[in-house]
Amino acid sequence: MSHRDRLAAFLDRADVRNTIIGIILFNSVLLGLETSDTVMGAAGPLIMMLDRICLAIFTLEILAKMYARGIITFFRSAWNVFDFFIVGIALLPFAENVSILRALRVLRILRIISAAPRLRRVIEGFLSALPGMASVFLLMGMIFYIAAVMSTKLYGDTFPDWFGTLGLSAYSLFQIMTLESWSMGIVRPVMEVHPGAWAFFVPFIMVTTFAVVNLIVGLIVNSMQDAHHAEDTVKTDAYRDEVLARLEAIERRLADGRQNEV
Amino acid sequence: MSHRDRLAAFLDRADVRNTIIGIILFNSVLLGLETSDTVMGAAGPLIMMLDRICLAIFTLEILAKMYARGIITFFRSAWNVFDFFIVGIALLPFAENVSILRALRVLRILRIISAAPRLRRVIEGFLSALPGMASVFLLMGMIFYIAAVMSTKLYGDTFPDWFGTLGLSAYSLFQIMTLESWSMGIVRPVMEVHPGAWAFFVPFIMVTTFAVVNLIVGLIVNSMQDAHHAEDTVKTDAYRDEVLARLEAIERRLADGRQNEV
Amino acid sequence: MSHRDRLAAFLDRADVRNTIIGIILFNSVLLGLETSDTVMGAAGPLIMMLDRICLAIFTLEILAKMYARGIITFFRSAWNVFDFFIVGIALLPFAENVSILRALRVLRILRIISAAPRLRRVIEGFLSALPGMASVFLLMGMIFYIAAVMSTKLYGDTFPDWFGTLGLSAYSLFQIMTLESWSMGIVRPVMEVHPGAWAFFVPFIMVTTFAVVNLIVGLIVNSMQDAHHAEDTVKTDAYRDEVLARLEAIERRLADGRQNEV
Amino acid sequence: MSHRDRLAAFLDRADVRNTIIGIILFNSVLLGLETSDTVMGAAGPLIMMLDRICLAIFTLEILAKMYARGIITFFRSAWNVFDFFIVGIALLPFAENVSILRALRVLRILRIISAAPRLRRVIEGFLSALPGMASVFLLMGMIFYIAAVMSTKLYGDTFPDWFGTLGLSAYSLFQIMTLESWSMGIVRPVMEVHPGAWAFFVPFIMVTTFAVVNLIVGLIVNSMQDAHHAEDTVKTDAYRDEVLARLEAIERRLADGRQNEV
Repeated sequence: MSHRDRLAAFLDRADVRNTIIGIILFNSVLLGLETSDTVMGAAGPLIMMLDRICLAIFTLEILAKMYARGIITFFRSAWNVFDFFIVGIALLPFAENVSILRALRVLRILRIISAAPRLRRVIEGFLSALPGMASVFLLMGMIFYIAAVMSTKLYGDTFPDWFGTLGLSAYSLFQIMTLESWSMGIVRPVMEVHPGAWAFFVPFIMVTTFAVVNLIVGLIVNSMQDAHHAEDTVKTDAYRDEVLARLEAIERRLADGRQNEV
Repeated sequence: MSHRDRLAAFLDRADVRNTIIGIILFNSVLLGLETSDTVMGAAGPLIMMLDRICLAIFTLEILAKMYARGIITFFRSAWNVFDFFIVGIALLPFAENVSILRALRVLRILRIISAAPRLRRVIEGFLSALPGMASVFLLMGMIFYIAAVMSTKLYGDTFPDWFGTLGLSAYSLFQIMTLESWSMGIVRPVMEVHPGAWAFFVPFIMVTTFAVVNLIVGLIVNSMQDAHHAEDTVKTDAYRDEVLARLEAIERRLADGRQNEV
Repeated sequence: MSHRDRLAAFLDRADVRNTIIGIILFNSVLLGLETSDTVMGAAGPLIMMLDRICLAIFTLEILAKMYARGIITFFRSAWNVFDFFIVGIALLPFAENVSILRALRVLRILRIISAAPRLRRVIEGFLSALPGMASVFLLMGMIFYIAAVMSTKLYGDTFPDWFGTLGLSAYSLFQIMTLESWSMGIVRPVMEVHPGAWAFFVPFIMVTTFAVVNLIVGLIVNSMQDAHHAEDTVKTDAYRDEVLARLEAIERRLADGRQNEV
Repeated sequence: MSHRDRLAAFLDRADVRNTIIGIILFNSVLLGLETSDTVMGAAGPLIMMLDRICLAIFTLEILAKMYARGIITFFRSAWNVFDFFIVGIALLPFAENVSILRALRVLRILRIISAAPRLRRVIEGFLSALPGMASVFLLMGMIFYIAAVMSTKLYGDTFPDWFGTLGLSAYSLFQIMTLESWSMGIVRPVMEVHPGAWAFFVPFIMVTTFAVVNLIVGLIVNSMQDAHHAEDTVKTDAYRDEVLARLEAIERRLADGRQNEV
């Protein structure tokens, strides 16, 4: 057993994995405490130090994994790439200054997903449902693009805050699709200037809602079939095989009987 | 092979189809760029020219299809009718002046649906679910009509902006059905004048929501059955046929055996 | 064939039924036109007269049904009771004065449901789903009652408009359950006076939403099973019966064979 | 039969149980009447006295159950613990002063659930679905925690009312997840200061909505499988056993026949 294999085995040990999960949870609490001004006033330096120690442990773990499995094998796993990026963000030198990058450091908590196999499976289950919905997503993207171009052309001049550019229109249409204040907030004011605006927005709501419902229906049907299969077919197949085998045996016996008589 | 057949074959070639899809996508980008004032200021004439070239290509393609398949065969396909109309709108001479018609030109992007077989199937799947829901739609239409007449009679005089005419009432009731600001925006103000208004609106919300839920349930049950069939019955039927065939063979053998003995 | 039987047969004839449906639809249009001031100004007396003729026909039809089937048999059908009441409302003498009763006359359009067998079946399908959901409805009613009593006690003094009485609380809680303006409109203002109000409202939203989801899930499972049965078992049962019959035939033959040999 | 057994049998008698249910319902009405100032003005002392009598009966019933079954067996049933706490709250001495504890007394009505076996089963059905959703709940909790930390860091300084602390952020994110006023009420104002805020909130909405949909889909699939099993397999298994038994009988006969011939 080489040096590398021993390291890989060490990293895979249940207690090592659980320790890492524990450190992630501890780090989550630290990141939560960082949002409280009173806590930071009382124990700021300590919390920052502990946070850096956690980050150092995560960095070491990833480097150890890279060394143990080889860089190419390491990056072949999507979960490793995921870990690499969410830890990497926190290591960027300017991460201390830009507030968005500082906020992104919190994503480190997501490491719990790649560390806990059960959560990993939930996410993999979610992702496995996505390809089947690709066509509907494509269609919805297209409907959104067309509706954004049309609403920008129609209402961009009169309502620049909502429909001034393609981006603003897409955001407003997303809001309308979620049905949030679509009428009182957006469509009624628009209708005061363009009385026919309902003829654009009501069909838009119907079409997108129908598409979303179809996505959910597709998800249900898929899950149901997966569940149905995993469990039902094993038993049914065993039964079928036995019936066919027995029928064949009877036929063979009958054929033998005939030959004996002849 | 006649001149027409060769043209039809040419239009059906995979690379010709993909070129058309490419032109549609390129045209979509152009239509998006047209919404940006800065882009139009810098390259307006170029974009307008490219847009017209795209439109010319679509027109030529449709004319070629008409010629290759004959006008009657052409219009028999609903997708061709669809293409004909969304390209035709952009060719209307006054399309340059009326802003709504100019906005409708964007619908041209929808040609991607008829051009890409996968999207076509999604839409056909959606449409195939509609006839099964016809009765529920009819019922909802009726509930809406009755509720619109009643709310116009009851609240039309006191709240003319929301319930002044049948049309305004139908729009307000649609908003209430989507649950957008139904209480804070509409029903609470109405209740200040008509304290019993909740007895009209709360049952309306319950009935329409229940109807919508039933539509979705119907959609799920239908999809599930289609999926169940398409896949399960092939295997089951093959098995059943084999069992019955074998049982018959055994019976025949037994009958033969008897005759031989006699 | 008695006088009564002949009348019953006449009322059941397809063309008589369709004529009634036609009159209902015509009456629906009249009731819609009544909401328009301009139409009523131009042809008010005509419309009112036609409306009364329609009402007279409905009344005659119901009286004819009562006579043909006997009053007891007539009222045994829930649909007849339904027709009796929605036509009866319009006949009340004071119906011309009280605006609510005048609005209720529009419910007459609902006669289309009892007249068209297809819509009748949809409604019967809806209603058949209700008993299975009785326990969940009971539970929701209880949650609502408890929440209404609690919110009246807790917030009735400080927010009398929303939680002043049991009735106002129930209405506000219904609004919160539909998620309409629950936070910005109700809970955030309440939290300014009672900072812990989220601990009452957030669990209320979670519990009621979960109950509603369970209602829908129950509906889906029921519909699925009904659909599954209606269609699948016929085929499966026929197959099973045939397999068992054939197996029995084989056994009998074998038993006969044995006896012959003896 | 000991004294205790006779008491336990008495408490389990149908008429005793129904009397208790009746008292709970009567107490519910009393608690509802207590919210009305006019009723309390007219008959306050009477209602308070009746309420105390009901409470005394509940307390006696629980004490009797404890004595009849023994304290350890009593607390083994989760429903008894439940009863103990919701009756116990009303007995706390300071319950008359603190308004929240006074409101919590209304929870006593929930005793109807433990008293009515049908409602009990509905609740047990709900609870049995929860463990299967534990992973998704854990994941949602994590997403909420991360989003709360991030939004507090990003928007806590500029919008202290909505995102000032972890708790406020979690509440605001819950509101956003329910889609209530998410755009007009929260995100549009935030975007005026942080133009890129949509890049945080729109993905948050998509991810949490997708997770909720997955929870519901999981619930549907589970319920469906339970229903499928309970009913379908009994019949199928009986059929399968019969087919296999008959096939075996035929084989045995054939084997016997051979031996006889030999």
